[in-house]
Amino acid sequence: MPDASLLEVFESPTDVPFLIEHIAEEFTSVCPKTGHPDFGTVTVRFEPGATCVELKSLKLYLQSFRNEGIFYEAVTNQIRDDLVQCMQPQWLEIVTDWRGRGGIRSVITATHGSRS
Amino acid sequence: MPDASLLEVFESPTDVPFLIEHIAEEFTSVCPKTGHPDFGTVTVRFEPGATCVELKSLKLYLQSFRNEGIFYEAVTNQIRDDLVQCMQPQWLEIVTDWRGRGGIRSVITATHGSRS
Amino acid sequence: MPDASLLEVFESPTDVPFLIEHIAEEFTSVCPKTGHPDFGTVTVRFEPGATCVELKSLKLYLQSFRNEGIFYEAVTNQIRDDLVQCMQPQWLEIVTDWRGRGGIRSVITATHGSRS
Amino acid sequence: MPDASLLEVFESPTDVPFLIEHIAEEFTSVCPKTGHPDFGTVTVRFEPGATCVELKSLKLYLQSFRNEGIFYEAVTNQIRDDLVQCMQPQWLEIVTDWRGRGGIRSVITATHGSRS
Amino acid sequence: MPDASLLEVFESPTDVPFLIEHIAEEFTSVCPKTGHPDFGTVTVRFEPGATCVELKSLKLYLQSFRNEGIFYEAVTNQIRDDLVQCMQPQWLEIVTDWRGRGGIRSVITATHGSRS
Amino acid sequence: MPDASLLEVFESPTDVPFLIEHIAEEFTSVCPKTGHPDFGTVTVRFEPGATCVELKSLKLYLQSFRNEGIFYEAVTNQIRDDLVQCMQPQWLEIVTDWRGRGGIRSVITATHGSRS
Amino acid sequence: MPDASLLEVFESPTDVPFLIEHIAEEFTSVCPKTGHPDFGTVTVRFEPGATCVELKSLKLYLQSFRNEGIFYEAVTNQIRDDLVQCMQPQWLEIVTDWRGRGGIRSVITATHGSRS
Amino acid sequence: MPDASLLEVFESPTDVPFLIEHIAEEFTSVCPKTGHPDFGTVTVRFEPGATCVELKSLKLYLQSFRNEGIFYEAVTNQIRDDLVQCMQPQWLEIVTDWRGRGGIRSVITATHGSRS
Amino acid sequence: MPDASLLEVFESPTDVPFLIEHIAEEFTSVCPKTGHPDFGTVTVRFEPGATCVELKSLKLYLQSFRNEGIFYEAVTNQIRDDLVQCMQPQWLEIVTDWRGRGGIRSVITATHGSRS
Amino acid sequence: MPDASLLEVFESPTDVPFLIEHIAEEFTSVCPKTGHPDFGTVTVRFEPGATCVELKSLKLYLQSFRNEGIFYEAVTNQIRDDLVQCMQPQWLEIVTDWRGRGGIRSVITATHGSRS
Repeated sequence: MPDASLLEVFESPTDVPFLIEHIAEEFTSVCPKTGHPDFGTVTVRFEPGATCVELKSLKLYLQSFRNEGIFYEAVTNQIRDDLVQCMQPQWLEIVTDWRGRGGIRSVITATHGSRS
Repeated sequence: MPDASLLEVFESPTDVPFLIEHIAEEFTSVCPKTGHPDFGTVTVRFEPGATCVELKSLKLYLQSFRNEGIFYEAVTNQIRDDLVQCMQPQWLEIVTDWRGRGGIRSVITATHGSRS
Repeated sequence: MPDASLLEVFESPTDVPFLIEHIAEEFTSVCPKTGHPDFGTVTVRFEPGATCVELKSLKLYLQSFRNEGIFYEAVTNQIRDDLVQCMQPQWLEIVTDWRGRGGIRSVITATHGSRS
Repeated sequence: MPDASLLEVFESPTDVPFLIEHIAEEFTSVCPKTGHPDFGTVTVRFEPGATCVELKSLKLYLQSFRNEGIFYEAVTNQIRDDLVQCMQPQWLEIVTDWRGRGGIRSVITATHGSRS
Repeated sequence: MPDASLLEVFESPTDVPFLIEHIAEEFTSVCPKTGHPDFGTVTVRFEPGATCVELKSLKLYLQSFRNEGIFYEAVTNQIRDDLVQCMQPQWLEIVTDWRGRGGIRSVITATHGSRS
Repeated sequence: MPDASLLEVFESPTDVPFLIEHIAEEFTSVCPKTGHPDFGTVTVRFEPGATCVELKSLKLYLQSFRNEGIFYEAVTNQIRDDLVQCMQPQWLEIVTDWRGRGGIRSVITATHGSRS
Repeated sequence: MPDASLLEVFESPTDVPFLIEHIAEEFTSVCPKTGHPDFGTVTVRFEPGATCVELKSLKLYLQSFRNEGIFYEAVTNQIRDDLVQCMQPQWLEIVTDWRGRGGIRSVITATHGSRS
Repeated sequence: MPDASLLEVFESPTDVPFLIEHIAEEFTSVCPKTGHPDFGTVTVRFEPGATCVELKSLKLYLQSFRNEGIFYEAVTNQIRDDLVQCMQPQWLEIVTDWRGRGGIRSVITATHGSRS
Repeated sequence: MPDASLLEVFESPTDVPFLIEHIAEEFTSVCPKTGHPDFGTVTVRFEPGATCVELKSLKLYLQSFRNEGIFYEAVTNQIRDDLVQCMQPQWLEIVTDWRGRGGIRSVITATHGSRS
Repeated sequence: MPDASLLEVFESPTDVPFLIEHIAEEFTSVCPKTGHPDFGTVTVRFEPGATCVELKSLKLYLQSFRNEGIFYEAVTNQIRDDLVQCMQPQWLEIVTDWRGRGGIRSVITATHGSRS
């Protein structure tokens, strides 16, 4: 199940504001209603504060949703909250882009803070 | 025929403003003038208020247009009005993108409210 | 419901073998199991015998499947059989390419006769 | 020759501002200098006032340029003027996108009014 | 109206068999049934005999169909016959690929002779 | 774990040979070496014998690999063997197309029988 | 060598501000350092003042760079200056997009004036 | 002007038959009729005999056509003949793919020998 | 190892502000953690001050990262700092776009100064 | 430098002939003439004999070319020879597809044995 303790950070290499984007194209979780797997892409964009999320720890954190029954909207807001807590970024945006179910595709976007 | 009573909502998982987009690529209705079927994609984008439209109910609602004789502009405005009434969103935008007829493709956009 | 009597033919303009392909990208029927609509592309390729199917009649014939509950495999074989009966082509191939359901897309191909 | 009297309108279905886009990918006219045909796409975008242009009348109007010798810039401005006169839109934009001649493609954009 | 006398040839630069393909993406004629214009791409592929069709004369010949009311199948077979008569090629194939009407696109292929 | 007993068949609707292709773009299993998830597309193509695999049962069967540690080559051969056993097809081909690991993508193809 | 005297203008068909874009995909000049040819696309966008550049004269002007040894940055600025001088546009932008050399592609943008 | 003496070869690294393809996307020559430049892609495919054409010498040879007035068909056959003479390949194919003139694109293919 | 002394500049050809973009699609460095090579595209966009970076020197500078163990974020910030120091640009933006590792792609953006 | 001893194999999971394709999109070596890096994609396709090459060992083997000065043709033939020696496959094909140098892209194909 989702495990925010997997997330690790490293110190940002610069004080000048800059932008980081990680695009995870192999996200999967489970629909809590039907029990069928959901597949999608999770994009994490942020302007770091003092720290940046470490890439391998982000991968393991996202894998921890694999067998979790959870809705699209909840996944998106939980990833935002967990990353805000561990990194304290200046600005952060999570976009989840889900492959279709019954002919409908969905994209959910949650943000935190504002661009410098 | 179009049936807004099919629409159901669930409580929004957060008070922080966020954005939801549902893209239904298999919409079909009937041209009231020629009786021939129209095909298109309906995109529903919104910033929820207290509730979000439930995905399966949205699918059934859109299917209820299948044998309705209705113009492009009317479809677009009716979907906006029905979703505004059931969800009371902060902001909502409906885009209908229709496959061509006689060499002309059409895209209609209707909105409600404003982005937070 | 599917109505082969809608199909009309016209005399082939030449005795020299040639090839005709009609691609109908807006086909829809209904899943007999779930009642949900299916959407796909129907391709009709043939080498005419004495006659060719008339284009508008083909369109109306394909539209007659709109509210029919019928499986992918049965649609494909029925279109082949109806067109073979009305045109007596030298060779004919029907390909139905269906948008996904539950993450699985399907393509069904049925043929009749052989290329000259 | 171009015939604005072919254009018909219908009453807008709503007072709420919305956006309509018609994309005609099969436009052709004739170069007045060389006599060779020109081919392009004409896009009509507008925010309606009290009326909207009827789709089939728009198609016939655009077909009336078929054998007219007329330059790219003049086509674009004439379509804008004819549609402004018949619809009195809140805002209107015409974009003509021409296939190349001698290795040069051209895109001409003319507008009227402003977005609400 | 279609005018095969516009076609000119030049002597093939070699006796070794080779292949020529001309792709005319701006073909237009008129539907004899509805009077509406048809648009498509005409591809001329051939292995020359003693002569090759001259490119500018081919362009003028194809333009001569502009206001002709003629069906897809007839266009294809007539272009084949006119080019066979003027060039006496070793092998020739005409493919006409038509933009959709009523949701159906068509591709017609006619050939003459055989590859060396 | 992979469970072939989930597979169900239905009687083929025709004796005439035809071709069925199911493309499952959301396959996932686990690398037995690293424990990391693998993602890919599984394509099942076959010419049926007396029976065809039922689509929903195929989906559930493919989902049963979700938490199985298994190599690319073994997945491909096992799906072939399980489907051959339950359907006895005239011809069958399994193609698994895996997203990259360490900059290398892989495609594995296994077949059974021959085309009629 | 580049010859601005080839450029001709015609009177703008309207006083209402509008936008013209010409995209020349077959530009070539020569690298003054290596003597090897450079290839790229030159885009000319402008809002006309009293006159517009004539299309065929633009083509001949661009061809006059064919055997000129000149750097990317200089080509871009010279085309801007020559067109500003002959047209006195309200606003003008030149974009040159060069195919790669040694694994690096370049895009240079020069502007004049401001949008109305 | 075209200069076959620019072509150099090196000894093939193996006796086992293999295939080499060089794709030159920046070819230009001049139309002998209009004086306007022609642009295209030249593809050289061959199965070497004892020698292979050296890549930089091929580039310089192709550049030597830059200001030559020569027809599409003649370019194609001359490149074939020059490369056959310098390399004595087991098999060779030249494909020239020309950007359109007056709405018509052309592709010319000339071959020598046969695949081992 | 990265060597900023390889960078050379030339005097900007104009005082008018303009924009230069160099896109290097063949960048490679080494992951300091795993020792495996990383591959990506480096885009350098700037509005020059008095000087512009010379293209070949930029290529050699980027090649000097080939065997350097360095993280994505550090590469991006170092290229920005080195180019700012040698060119003193009005504005500069570095975007590094990395091919995936473990199913996650990354894009890093660093800027300096502001657009004129 | 290239090190075939890095290659490891595992026993093929089946006696039935099947097909494996590994596509390594991040190959780099060095041009022995200019010292500049070359970049390309290496595709390894084979029908295994008793053994299959292990994926991670293949990756390390391909990385061992990173700083080797070696021509396109030699890379291709060496990979074929090294893989034939370690796997003794029924059939094997190596395709190397190189990004352009001086406007010319190259593709080299070497094979061993024949398909069963």
